[in-house]
Amino acid sequence: MKKRKRNTPTIRKPSASYSFTMRIVIPSRPGSFAQVASLIGKAGGDLGAIDLVTVSKEGTIRDVTVAARDEKHAEKIIASVRREKSFDVRSVSDRTFLMHLGGKISVENRHPVKTRDDLSMAYTPGVARVCMAIHEKPRASWSLTIKGNTVAVVSDGSAVLGLGDIGPEAAMPVMEGKAMLFKEFAGVNAFPICLNTHNVDEIVQTVKALAPTFGGINLEDIAAPRCFEIERRLIETLSIPVFHDDQHGTATVVLAALLNAVRLLKLELKKMKVVLSGVGAAGIACSRMMYRAGIRNIIGFDRKGALYRGRTEHMNPEKASFVKFTNPENYRGGMAGALKGAHLFLGLSGPGSVDPAWLKKMAPRAMVFAMANPVPEVYPEEVPRNVKIVATGRSDYPNQINNVLCFPGIFKGALSVYATRINERMKLAAARAIAGTIPPKALSPEYIIPSVFDKTVAERVAKAAAKAAISSGVARRKTTPLTFQ
Amino acid sequence: MKKRKRNTPTIRKPSASYSFTMRIVIPSRPGSFAQVASLIGKAGGDLGAIDLVTVSKEGTIRDVTVAARDEKHAEKIIASVRREKSFDVRSVSDRTFLMHLGGKISVENRHPVKTRDDLSMAYTPGVARVCMAIHEKPRASWSLTIKGNTVAVVSDGSAVLGLGDIGPEAAMPVMEGKAMLFKEFAGVNAFPICLNTHNVDEIVQTVKALAPTFGGINLEDIAAPRCFEIERRLIETLSIPVFHDDQHGTATVVLAALLNAVRLLKLELKKMKVVLSGVGAAGIACSRMMYRAGIRNIIGFDRKGALYRGRTEHMNPEKASFVKFTNPENYRGGMAGALKGAHLFLGLSGPGSVDPAWLKKMAPRAMVFAMANPVPEVYPEEVPRNVKIVATGRSDYPNQINNVLCFPGIFKGALSVYATRINERMKLAAARAIAGTIPPKALSPEYIIPSVFDKTVAERVAKAAAKAAISSGVARRKTTPLTFQ
Repeated sequence: MKKRKRNTPTIRKPSASYSFTMRIVIPSRPGSFAQVASLIGKAGGDLGAIDLVTVSKEGTIRDVTVAARDEKHAEKIIASVRREKSFDVRSVSDRTFLMHLGGKISVENRHPVKTRDDLSMAYTPGVARVCMAIHEKPRASWSLTIKGNTVAVVSDGSAVLGLGDIGPEAAMPVMEGKAMLFKEFAGVNAFPICLNTHNVDEIVQTVKALAPTFGGINLEDIAAPRCFEIERRLIETLSIPVFHDDQHGTATVVLAALLNAVRLLKLELKKMKVVLSGVGAAGIACSRMMYRAGIRNIIGFDRKGALYRGRTEHMNPEKASFVKFTNPENYRGGMAGALKGAHLFLGLSGPGSVDPAWLKKMAPRAMVFAMANPVPEVYPEEVPRNVKIVATGRSDYPNQINNVLCFPGIFKGALSVYATRINERMKLAAARAIAGTIPPKALSPEYIIPSVFDKTVAERVAKAAAKAAISSGVARRKTTPLTFQ
Repeated sequence: MKKRKRNTPTIRKPSASYSFTMRIVIPSRPGSFAQVASLIGKAGGDLGAIDLVTVSKEGTIRDVTVAARDEKHAEKIIASVRREKSFDVRSVSDRTFLMHLGGKISVENRHPVKTRDDLSMAYTPGVARVCMAIHEKPRASWSLTIKGNTVAVVSDGSAVLGLGDIGPEAAMPVMEGKAMLFKEFAGVNAFPICLNTHNVDEIVQTVKALAPTFGGINLEDIAAPRCFEIERRLIETLSIPVFHDDQHGTATVVLAALLNAVRLLKLELKKMKVVLSGVGAAGIACSRMMYRAGIRNIIGFDRKGALYRGRTEHMNPEKASFVKFTNPENYRGGMAGALKGAHLFLGLSGPGSVDPAWLKKMAPRAMVFAMANPVPEVYPEEVPRNVKIVATGRSDYPNQINNVLCFPGIFKGALSVYATRINERMKLAAARAIAGTIPPKALSPEYIIPSVFDKTVAERVAKAAAKAAISSGVARRKTTPLTFQ
């Protein structure tokens, strides 16, 4: 499938992720600051916080924070202020880089170690009794160590965001960010483990070896197809949940959005036709979840076109398994044809993989979930009128499909009952819990999925996942803890 | 060497590590609480905090904290209060276990993730720029991720405290405790990694794989002799410090104590004779450091007697290497004979490995460092008068030799200059820094080593280790950070 040339300009607004702070000496006379503000505005910058640093003989020193569209734009804004001789730009600091200085997470003590008594309980000799209690009853490690509330965020740095194989050191900021989300949204400790190997056996052996510390393993940004084998082998070996978020987190949140969209458009899952663009880890996982939820007609497309039984080119074991339960009529044509009468276009590929014109042939009440990030397969402005609902991965459009709605809560629920795995029933329960956060009356084409900042989501997902773990027999504890009651 | 039968009763006092809290309903009449206190006192318990919970019709409910000698003693104290019908012991909780509930450490966010702006800087899309900056200049990972201030505390749970091979889950409370000490004393993030394997190749491969996350590796409680090979191979492979604390931490603190003791007793290192009991990981590491510091006459003893060149029984490569630089006269007799004229008995073995009577034959100004824990090779009360200085690993005697004086500071110093390793010069500098914490005039036979709670030690050790790293060419940064100036 050739990539369509895009005429649509990339829509970009100044963003905090490209914001910087200038320390400027401004002459102490009326109108000086207004002049600075005007220069920034003319250059297209978005003026943010203005902090007074000090007042000196030379003038007022201020820290002025500005959001830009990108690095080049930031440079342009800085240059426009610098050009004005009466202002002295002392220093410029990048807020995103400043936030990363020293790392974004820390390990902290939950109790003070200030006195001899503290030391004798937290460490020798008192700790020996706790060690022996665990030695005698291994399950006690869930309550007497961090295990019961701690997840490893494991990556080999091979498929980081849209950046590709940038290696374990460069992947760390993403994994630290992920750990922050675990803490912020679910109170779960998460620790990044970035691995210096791409070898499947070594990754499996390493995660297996370090598992005793953790109550769960979140695999992250590991390239397909090895992510499948790594996950499969770890699930077989370990008795704690192993969850490749790029697959199952995405699938769970996509299904949540779909459940609400279907309700709103009064569609029936078993009668729906879905066209999937991108048959990678996320696409296959989404398809499996949609299938389990009742959708029977899914047609997948990769760079070589439709996936059908009998295709030999550009296949792998996961794609072979995918065609077994998809494409019931064994369609072999192009995407434009497949989209005829389809209810959902699900994009998990890249910008330009679908022509907006093709979408006109979709069903009268159609949906587009265009998840490529930051540039979606199709922009919400581009869809024809028969497409009633559009969701993307972006925060600047309605209906943002973001994994953070799933992973903190589903792990919290799994940990709360010492689950041995995160199974299909738990994922389905999580998807329903996410969908159910929005009261039916509040549903609208622009509100099918809750905000990532809706603090009730993680707790709902945790509760649902814990119950599903108990009822499906993967919980070591048979009651959910008090906080869920 | 047969273990001597001990007549000395184990000296034990009530300790916080065996403390518990009773919730007692006490009748509201004068003298009731005094009666409770008296019962606890008679049973030998040490009364601690008394907290009022509430006053009800039945009486006053109080939480009474009591320190006992051990679990049996605790039960006896509880029974003595229970026996008195007028008191109702509602519940008993063990303070040490309570402290461990949910684990002793947590992973926390250094910045809030409350707004869209926070999210777009800590995670996508802003994080991508930070990832690319590291991808282009890998050294930036030291400043832009947790790496530059984070150590892994790695154990296979095979030689935990005096408990032996209790496995990775049961070792976790010790490793969490160690992580607490890193934070409390040096502000360093430390994360426990307890490994589910005893296989040398697997341990090496695992630590190698997860190294990108960390700025240093603290190996802990790994049984000899495999600890030697693991450390050696990791040092060869990795470009971050790998430090087996049981060896080098102990050796550094022993040398610190020795330097002050020698100064106090006006002895000369090169003329000293040392008898070492216990030729394990710690014993060999101490001997190497003492040798490097100038001591030439060290005789080591294990369970089979003196180690000499030509001995074949019960040897291993490390012991073979040990006898090459020790026992200059190739002494083959017993420990009693070796102690004749010796200046230091260094015990890193177990209780009963030396007869106090043998110590009378030591030099007129002799020292005993009896480090077995919790019961030392010989108690300070038992040494003859020619032994002028006694040090132990215990907190209830003067001169406690505790690794916490070394590891937080030496790692802090190494991390501060992005050191590639912790070498001999850094350890020697650390030992001197620890010793130098005590002003020469304050030195006394009961004060040769600073308190573990002396907060200046870690900073001094860090500064000394960082300088030694720079001057010995293992630092990636050529200046120590501001906090050390």
